[in-house]
Amino acid sequence: ARPRVGYFYTGKTGAQLLTEKIGKLTVKEYQSIPVVVNESASVYDAICTMFLEDVGTLFVVNGSSCLVGILSRKDLLRASMGKQELEQMPVNIIMTRMPNITTCSADDLLSDVAQILITKQIDGLPVVNKKDGSSNSDMEVTGRITKTSITKAFVDIANNRIV
Amino acid sequence: ARPRVGYFYTGKTGAQLLTEKIGKLTVKEYQSIPVVVNESASVYDAICTMFLEDVGTLFVVNGSSCLVGILSRKDLLRASMGKQELEQMPVNIIMTRMPNITTCSADDLLSDVAQILITKQIDGLPVVNKKDGSSNSDMEVTGRITKTSITKAFVDIANNRIV
Repeated sequence: ARPRVGYFYTGKTGAQLLTEKIGKLTVKEYQSIPVVVNESASVYDAICTMFLEDVGTLFVVNGSSCLVGILSRKDLLRASMGKQELEQMPVNIIMTRMPNITTCSADDLLSDVAQILITKQIDGLPVVNKKDGSSNSDMEVTGRITKTSITKAFVDIANNRIV
Repeated sequence: ARPRVGYFYTGKTGAQLLTEKIGKLTVKEYQSIPVVVNESASVYDAICTMFLEDVGTLFVVNGSSCLVGILSRKDLLRASMGKQELEQMPVNIIMTRMPNITTCSADDLLSDVAQILITKQIDGLPVVNKKDGSSNSDMEVTGRITKTSITKAFVDIANNRIV
């Protein structure tokens, strides 16, 4: 019998195997906690929340904790340039809303989400749990995946912590 | 003589080899064009530049095109919340300045820069060319490296485009 040490040819190169491993990383391994504001909050409140929580993207939810919108730093900066009173302006005037929100789920591949962030030029996606499979309207926000999450995964790969 | 096909043992696994390749990626392969404003520009001008160029970080330069400061979306949002006139406020009042600016050079490793972005919790670094090796004060800005650059590198790895 040949000794069980060294290399056995599997039909794939080691590089292919690692690429496959990277390609199998999922959202749930790198997602962070979502930061949400209620749809009745003011733009002023949203800006304060963004600074206090130090995030770049806020998710807007309704009374049933379901996702109804997204606010980026850019949206808030644009609003704060205007002449209106930020305390009086509700976030649902300036937020991005369905069907223009891209979401992902905890089991999605990190590489697919990274591709979406690049292609759509957005900073982060909400990780959602669809309460009712047939409807887009009932989505509970369970996480947040951003370019920071992807950068953390990159550091892990470079430091050989994936394998 | 053994046939020159298949695998030869090099003392390293294929995974180690790919990790090494990823660890050798440099800033210059993924940097993008820097967007700068002059130190005499107003905060209002800076916000307009940020929207027009669609970037998250602006670099502030002096009359000799040398780096004197950095402006993030957060800095600009904070300023725009205040009561002062943005057209009258110069950017050098609110910018981050030396020695609190972290820079990198085109030959730095992408993995080191990714680690800095995570550790220091910043969105992007200026890529600089030190005109005078002995001084920190004369730095020409030649590029920009951000979490977007790192996310692009991640997508390339996942799609097996590095090897």
